[in-house]
Amino acid sequence: MKPDGGSLIGFGSSGLGGATFQAFDPARGVSFEPLFSSATNEDVDRAAKLAAAAAPLWAKLSGAQRNQFLRAVADNLEAKTGDLVARAMLETGLPEARLKGEVARTCGQLRLYGETAERGDWLDARIETALPDRKPLPKPDHRSMLRPLGPVVVFGSSNFPFAYSVAGGDTASAFAAGCPVIVKAHPAHPGTSELVGRLILHAVRDCGLPEGTFSLLFDAGFSVGQALVTHPLVKAVGFTGSVKGGRALSDLASARPEPIPVYAEMGSINPVFILPGAIAERSAALVDGLHASATLGVGQFCTNPGLIALQRSAAAEELIKNLAAKLAATPEAPMLTAGIQKNFSAHTAARARQPGVKLAAHAKASGPCGAAPIWFETDAMEFLGNPALSQEIFGPSSLIVWCANGAEMLTVARQLEGSLTATLLVGTIGTELSEQAALVDLLAAKAGRLVLNGYPTGVEVSHAMVHGGPYPSTSDGGRSTSVGTRALYRWARLVCYQSFSEQLLPSELQSANPLGLLRMVNGQWTRDKVG
Amino acid sequence: MKPDGGSLIGFGSSGLGGATFQAFDPARGVSFEPLFSSATNEDVDRAAKLAAAAAPLWAKLSGAQRNQFLRAVADNLEAKTGDLVARAMLETGLPEARLKGEVARTCGQLRLYGETAERGDWLDARIETALPDRKPLPKPDHRSMLRPLGPVVVFGSSNFPFAYSVAGGDTASAFAAGCPVIVKAHPAHPGTSELVGRLILHAVRDCGLPEGTFSLLFDAGFSVGQALVTHPLVKAVGFTGSVKGGRALSDLASARPEPIPVYAEMGSINPVFILPGAIAERSAALVDGLHASATLGVGQFCTNPGLIALQRSAAAEELIKNLAAKLAATPEAPMLTAGIQKNFSAHTAARARQPGVKLAAHAKASGPCGAAPIWFETDAMEFLGNPALSQEIFGPSSLIVWCANGAEMLTVARQLEGSLTATLLVGTIGTELSEQAALVDLLAAKAGRLVLNGYPTGVEVSHAMVHGGPYPSTSDGGRSTSVGTRALYRWARLVCYQSFSEQLLPSELQSANPLGLLRMVNGQWTRDKVG
Repeated sequence: MKPDGGSLIGFGSSGLGGATFQAFDPARGVSFEPLFSSATNEDVDRAAKLAAAAAPLWAKLSGAQRNQFLRAVADNLEAKTGDLVARAMLETGLPEARLKGEVARTCGQLRLYGETAERGDWLDARIETALPDRKPLPKPDHRSMLRPLGPVVVFGSSNFPFAYSVAGGDTASAFAAGCPVIVKAHPAHPGTSELVGRLILHAVRDCGLPEGTFSLLFDAGFSVGQALVTHPLVKAVGFTGSVKGGRALSDLASARPEPIPVYAEMGSINPVFILPGAIAERSAALVDGLHASATLGVGQFCTNPGLIALQRSAAAEELIKNLAAKLAATPEAPMLTAGIQKNFSAHTAARARQPGVKLAAHAKASGPCGAAPIWFETDAMEFLGNPALSQEIFGPSSLIVWCANGAEMLTVARQLEGSLTATLLVGTIGTELSEQAALVDLLAAKAGRLVLNGYPTGVEVSHAMVHGGPYPSTSDGGRSTSVGTRALYRWARLVCYQSFSEQLLPSELQSANPLGLLRMVNGQWTRDKVG
Repeated sequence: MKPDGGSLIGFGSSGLGGATFQAFDPARGVSFEPLFSSATNEDVDRAAKLAAAAAPLWAKLSGAQRNQFLRAVADNLEAKTGDLVARAMLETGLPEARLKGEVARTCGQLRLYGETAERGDWLDARIETALPDRKPLPKPDHRSMLRPLGPVVVFGSSNFPFAYSVAGGDTASAFAAGCPVIVKAHPAHPGTSELVGRLILHAVRDCGLPEGTFSLLFDAGFSVGQALVTHPLVKAVGFTGSVKGGRALSDLASARPEPIPVYAEMGSINPVFILPGAIAERSAALVDGLHASATLGVGQFCTNPGLIALQRSAAAEELIKNLAAKLAATPEAPMLTAGIQKNFSAHTAARARQPGVKLAAHAKASGPCGAAPIWFETDAMEFLGNPALSQEIFGPSSLIVWCANGAEMLTVARQLEGSLTATLLVGTIGTELSEQAALVDLLAAKAGRLVLNGYPTGVEVSHAMVHGGPYPSTSDGGRSTSVGTRALYRWARLVCYQSFSEQLLPSELQSANPLGLLRMVNGQWTRDKVG
């Protein structure tokens, strides 16, 4: 399998395109074949119309049919893992083991979300049967459930060429919820995107699904994304990337004649609070754990720990000294793109110039897109007075915030902006309990996931995961998650059927409960049939 | 109980206010005592700070405590029904029976949402236990649930002085979800609002809840609402009213440095499709049913049937002739405010001037704010070519759309904007089935509630109700409902606890399941304890 550089619009491909571009190998610092053509406005319109034509058919697919399709996509990806990983290594500079793991995770997501669709309990089916004799008015029969929103646009991310790109979590959850998908490929890995897109289209054909089920559009710049988000037939958007990018798309979507939801997973500093008990009990383990989490993937994870708050003491200073030594000895690795590396350099240089900020650790890098850890430290009072220090630096840079005491630590927690995660490293449970509980209460209002005595990187794909948090970590204030089976909820809305006949009801709401769903019937959750 | 005209800010009242205004009796056409003072920016800021201070305390209240408070509010309203209804009759011109029924509905909502909070199943609690030996990586323990968003601003509606105003559905669901509430009173019924607000504050004191639990602000204009929606401590907004008003607030909220959700329930034409079978079987019953639904409350319901589509035939023309005669004989009644009556006159006059539109029925009105039915008719081709005909006219005016055949009816359905409801009046189930099924499929994409052989007015407050629909009927594309127990979901976001100790977990997620919640444990829904 080799990419040929054209957008995939349903079963066709794009015509004469806009600006062309190439993939770039960040390890070698060179561009390489083929040429990719940006989609035109006509391509966008054609993809949107195909998706809109497919939407009513998708809305009527059973959960079992959606599952069959998602499993076919996963099977296709697995069968071509070698080709996919080879291309992705060139385009991202990420190591083979990581990329193989990511393909496996992507297939796991597709299957878990498919299984969730087939099981159907997520639909929140509810039935209230009629009470014809109720006074003063009879009560009609009401049956309601979630139904798909319609065409969804997904923006591929830079840092997950598989798991949050073409067949990634947003796409998988939108299909599982019953929505056609149009992906805007991330220009950092266009060839990988095209190969995955073709494998999705094979599954579309094999499952006999409509042409508009899936399209993949390339763009060297921003105009295709803007055209997609403002297209009247598009009903929702998924995005993983920067605050600037996510906010721009949210603003466009809010200003449409018909506003649509944008689920943007954006910037997050993922604060880590270390209580004295943890340092007293296991300083060396904390050094290893923090180092591993902060340098994983050259710091290019949305859950990278960007802020470390701790109380000044001899033991705490010893911990940071050892951590700094370990960071300084960390070998460089290429960042995902030249643009990301350039931003990393610019933002770390700017942070070094902030008043009251000192360099805490610095490893040197020299490769074309190379980066190595650059950490800073400051005092809580400086941090609290300077909003610039709360901004995420994407890459291997974190800020150590020295607190004078526990109260100052709580003040830091209270002032934080929203994050995807917040981590507490504490001593033996039972000690420091009131301090721990106070931090938990504050941080539960600031983050979507609280980690106790662990590290924020590593996001489990499960029923219970929450990958979302208050602004700016997501555009919707953390009311949704982009990882885990609750991700399906983003692409659905409620519909109620009043006084319907059995034959006009969707099977999910029929009295006989032919799908065996967990439903709320007259206030009680049950898998029983009605009546 | 008599109102004194000051905003209620926590347990205090406003200082020297802004512009003053009075309530207006639409039946007699006169203003009356007392003077109400608009809140100042300082009042807004004080209310927001009090609410923000109360928010962490509210987030820790148990569902049982929230229920106790909501029941206390309902008890207080019931005890003062006489005073409340007397004041509301003067301010709205609505009849006593309707207002008594609305107080009862409001109390029912408060109790149902309180019961839902105490029961706790709505929290979507999920637990995935650890797998320490999993390869390649151990799986940590994850437990997640919904938590309250924080201070909520509610805008009272003009047309439901109780059920969608100060202690109405938005307020009740926000309290049930664990959020403090600031209400912006609708200036059409300020005295009623103040009386209800004081009864809420009695319950706050009686239950020993924090002062910032509730505030009520008056305003003669728009500036208090704008200040509330843009206040950085406010986290979400509920609104019931016009598309213009709801959209303006949504736009303000989207443009904030930290955007927040606005759940605006706005304009809806609530289309009714009458198939030939229904006319053949029960023409006289349809006349009575359509007349009653369309004239209820002088047409001032968000579910008022604003568009009637049917296929031209002698029987259909006979039905409309009889309906027109009944409409023309309908006595006038006062509309809720002089402004609403003025808009009704202006919009019906503008519709009469649209090309291809004829007057279908017209009853005369002469009182100060009086209105009586004014109906129009047009052909499907005119309707499809003129977007102005799709706009809601708030009040007793509907548009009859004559279709040449079933296919044209489907085209009308396909082109509709979003509505709260869509109604199908059909013949004996089993006949016309493919035509019925095609309409159901189309309308399920256009409305939040589909009514079969019934009428759209009358919104049941239950677990299965959906009162929300695609834009412009709501600002969030129908992903939420403002009526029924799912209304609580609007005020919550997900939080996940990773590797937590039992003593730091909220009781809802503790292994012993002390509250007996329905939880998803390792993929299975159960009320059992874990382990």
